[in-house]
Formats: sequence, structure tokens, C-alpha cells
Amino acid sequence: MSAILLAIMGWDPKNWDQLFRALSPQRDIRLWPEQARNPADITYACVWKPPHGMLAEHRNLKAVFSLGAGVDDILTDIELPNVPIVRVVDADLTMRMTEYVVLHVLKYHRQQRLYESQQRVRMWHEHEQAVASDVSVGVMGLGELGYASAIALQRLGFRVHGWSRTQKIIPGVETFYGAVGLEPFLRRAEILVCLLPSTPGTRGILNLDTFRRLKFNGAMHGAYLINAARGDLQVDADIIVALDEGTLAGATLDVFPVEPLPVTSPLWTHPKVTVTPHNAAQSSPRSIVSNILRQIDRFEVGVPLDHVVDRRRGY
Amino acid sequence: MSAILLAIMGWDPKNWDQLFRALSPQRDIRLWPEQARNPADITYACVWKPPHGMLAEHRNLKAVFSLGAGVDDILTDIELPNVPIVRVVDADLTMRMTEYVVLHVLKYHRQQRLYESQQRVRMWHEHEQAVASDVSVGVMGLGELGYASAIALQRLGFRVHGWSRTQKIIPGVETFYGAVGLEPFLRRAEILVCLLPSTPGTRGILNLDTFRRLKFNGAMHGAYLINAARGDLQVDADIIVALDEGTLAGATLDVFPVEPLPVTSPLWTHPKVTVTPHNAAQSSPRSIVSNILRQIDRFEVGVPLDHVVDRRRGY
Repeated sequence: MSAILLAIMGWDPKNWDQLFRALSPQRDIRLWPEQARNPADITYACVWKPPHGMLAEHRNLKAVFSLGAGVDDILTDIELPNVPIVRVVDADLTMRMTEYVVLHVLKYHRQQRLYESQQRVRMWHEHEQAVASDVSVGVMGLGELGYASAIALQRLGFRVHGWSRTQKIIPGVETFYGAVGLEPFLRRAEILVCLLPSTPGTRGILNLDTFRRLKFNGAMHGAYLINAARGDLQVDADIIVALDEGTLAGATLDVFPVEPLPVTSPLWTHPKVTVTPHNAAQSSPRSIVSNILRQIDRFEVGVPLDHVVDRRRGY
Repeated sequence: MSAILLAIMGWDPKNWDQLFRALSPQRDIRLWPEQARNPADITYACVWKPPHGMLAEHRNLKAVFSLGAGVDDILTDIELPNVPIVRVVDADLTMRMTEYVVLHVLKYHRQQRLYESQQRVRMWHEHEQAVASDVSVGVMGLGELGYASAIALQRLGFRVHGWSRTQKIIPGVETFYGAVGLEPFLRRAEILVCLLPSTPGTRGILNLDTFRRLKFNGAMHGAYLINAARGDLQVDADIIVALDEGTLAGATLDVFPVEPLPVTSPLWTHPKVTVTPHNAAQSSPRSIVSNILRQIDRFEVGVPLDHVVDRRRGY
């Protein structure tokens, strides 16, 4: 017996269940917890925020596939079985994230919020507009998503630089790495785009101390922050302080330490904040499921799994 | 004597005057009308909306340079001297226009207006998001600006097609041309981007009949219009009708038949309209002036002028 377990919390599992069955009708698919029986049958688990300890009950597990982009929740399960954990890397998801980053960088660059406020009072007034090649965008995190965003921004003419844990080379992009590289990276950034994974080394990195190192755009205004990565990278209260003191001129946040963002959060109504409901890079379930099934087919004939998480670095 | 005349209406001429003097201190620069004397001295005129008939008074004129992107106003001067009229083609201007087009296409594609209205009521709710490769963007006008926008959109994953007066080939972009090509082009467009020149053949082309041929996005919504070209291409009243009947789901307008847009225009307050004050592609005056001076230097040693307008086709 070789069965696939689907364990999905926080999302509606029905659509995923249907997709697995439709794309692989010959396989034994079991939706947890309704169809949980004989844990020893389970060889693969496809999960989103499974309860901690649950995976450990499946002693014949060969691999765990994450259904969403982050694996931080899985990795904090102290009973996590010692099998490969596979991240989602999906061209479709990368394109969606790139769209989100480009949209919000351009919104700031082109002062669209200002023009919208002028429209409300029927004011026809043009403001000086910087050339993209004079504007520095700093991308934190240069994995699949950061890399794609950096390239897209650079093609639009922005001066792009990047920061990552280990050294990365990207044509046309000045890169920095490690703790030593963080300071010079931040000093250059007028628009900071965060696409880091959530790891013990990155949690809380978007804090007041970080914001105060960003490039202050002359007498004009502070820097802009775009976080489309993980909510626990940011300190909400520090973002408010930085906005109110002028260190930040605006923030676009797709993720939050607590989601959905509580109605009591001052971020909802802050005039310099754009809140989106963790929709920057919706995965296309069909594309994720078909990638996972393809990996399982290949794995069963001896091909190593792609995108296996390094547990020590955390992604 | 060889002098350069600057004749600028509707814009503040001071900055231009200073730029010409700073970048070419050895030349005789005369700002019209204050410094108008001895019209026979003038060999070059650099103009924006000069009064009709005025250029005809300069019988030694060798060339006229437009300071802005459109030449439609110059070409309707029935006394226009028979000398080359030179358009602005500026890499900087092309980049700015591309930014504007990408920003507003992404705003529609990513339903950003809907998410902003949800933020106002603190609503955390994600909507289904189409993949860019399923979304057709139609670019009308495939000159420098249309070409650059089509390529940028295609790189972001959109299905891009284009329409122009004469046949154009763009890698990865399905192109249509002429009167016969208009209908199949419009039928495919879910987001219509207009970057046409204003000519007798294009004026008023953005009308109700055109909008009704656009691709109706299923039961979902009508098409989106982005006009960043010329105001007289569009019929404002038809845009309102198309929005109200649902043929158009939204319109982003940077240009208008009358500018500034009169405060009485219903476009200012229409919930589906984004108005910008003709700022899509601000020219960088410094870059335009230095291009013109370089052209004059080369022309005087016998090199033909670049970007000379074909008066019959109108651009």
C-alpha cells in the first residue's frame, strides 16, 4: 500500500482533494482527518500547516510536500520525521509575486497615491517625476522570487541591488550578503522589497533599527517598504513608528504576524499603509498539485527530489 | 546669423530657455515673443504649440523641433513652412511611458482598486486572480512607445497583441494592422492600451463602437481602457456611457480633449475612472534639449535629421 495524505489547515481542503484525485485517479488519496486510517499506508504527505506531531505518526513516510510557499510552520514541528521536506517552486507563483512587486514599486515611484488624492479634489497638477535609473530598489532575499523581481525591476530601468544570506550573482544587480553586507545594502535602498524566508535569522528583521538605516530621500521623504514574504519578518509597531516619524514614507504589507490582520490593527487605517490579504502570490493549486505528482512519479523511479529544504538554514 | 527660436505656449518656457543657454552657450537663443527680432536670423525653431502662422514669418528656417511627444498641433498649422519637422524620440520618455502602462495594466489585472476599497472597511478577503498568460492586452500604436510597452507587458507574462496602421513585427506579440485588422484586434483585448499618434485617421477612435467590440470578460466584467496618447483620440461622453452600461469596467485616462480637464467633467468623480494630469511620460527637458542640440550640430555638417515627421501620415 502506498497512499498520499492531504493535511490542510486554514485553507479549504476540498479543492485540493479534488485536484489530487482528478490529476492522479489511480492513486490512493486520503484527506486528513476524515479519511485517516492505517497511518502505515501513507508514503507521501502534502500539507499546509498540519498540526505539530501529526506527521510523526506516519512511520513509512518518504517525503513531505508543502502546498504553500513557506515551510517555516512545518520546520517548527519538533517531532518532524526525518524525511525530505519539499518546498513549492512554481513558475506561476513566481510570476504572480513579480507582478505584485512591480505594481507596488511603480505605485510608489509614480506617486500614484498622491495623484489619486488630487483626483478626489479635481486637482490637475503634475509633480516632478524621478527617472527610474535614479531610484534604488533593494531586494532582500534572492531566491526564486527575489531573483525574478530583481530582474523585472532592473528591466524597467530601476537601479536594483540585492541582499541574501549567501552570496548571489545577478547580472546588472549589485549584490550584498550576510550580516556584514546588510548595512551597505540598506543604506542604498529607497524602496525596500522583502522576499526573505522566515528563519530564526530573519524573524523580526523589518524593525525600526533596520528602517532607520534605509536611504533617506533627501529632504523629500523617507523610504518605502514592501513586505510580501512572511508576517513574522516584520514588527508591526515599529512600522507605525517609522511611518509616523517619517523614516518610512509608505508601506505595502501583504503579510502580518497574525492573519487575518485583526480589525483592531492600526495598519488598516494608517494613511501611509496599503494592506493586501496575503494575495501577492496566490499559488495556482492545479499547477502545484501537478508539480508534486510529477515529483512523486520521478522519485519512485529513483530521480532525486527537487527543492528539498535544508533544515539548518530553514528554507 | 544663425539663431534658435524657442516658442512655447501652455508650458513655462523659463526652464527650457535656461537649458538651451546652459547646454549651448555659444548659440544665439531667442525666446519668443520677448526676444523676437529679425525673423530672418532664425534657422531653427524649437516649439510647443506655437501660434499658427507664426513659423511662416521665419523665411530662413531650416527645421522645426517639437519639444513634446505629439506633433498634431504643429501639423494643423496651414501656413507651416516646408521644412523638416522633427519629433521627440527620447529613451527616457519611452521608459516613463512603459512604467505608466505597466503600472495601470497591473492595477487592473491585480484588482488593486477592489483591495483598496476592502482595506477601507478592514475586510480581509482574497479574490480569484487570473494568471497573466490568460489575460489579453491589446496595444494600439506600435511606434517607439507602443513597442516598448508591448515588450514589457509580454515579459511580465501577459498575452499581448498589437495594432498599427502599417504592419509591424514584434517577437512574441501577435500583430494586426490597418482597417481590416482592427476588428480582430479589438475582439481579443481585455485591457486596451492606446499609444496611437493623433492623426485624421485616429481622432475619435476611442468611441462607443470601438469599446463594444472589445473582449467581454465572460459574465465577470467589461474591458479596461488606458489612454496615455492624445486626448482627441477619445470621446469622453462615450467612455462614460461604456462604463455605465458595463462595456468598460474601468478607464485610466492621462489625456483629454480639453486640458486641464475641466472641473465640471464627470470623469473626475466617476468611480471607475482614474484621471492623471497628462503625466504618463513627462519628458526630461534636459534630455530633449541635448538631443535637439546634437541633431542641429550633426545637421550642420551634413548628417540627415532623425525622426522627421511624415506629414501625410501625420507622425
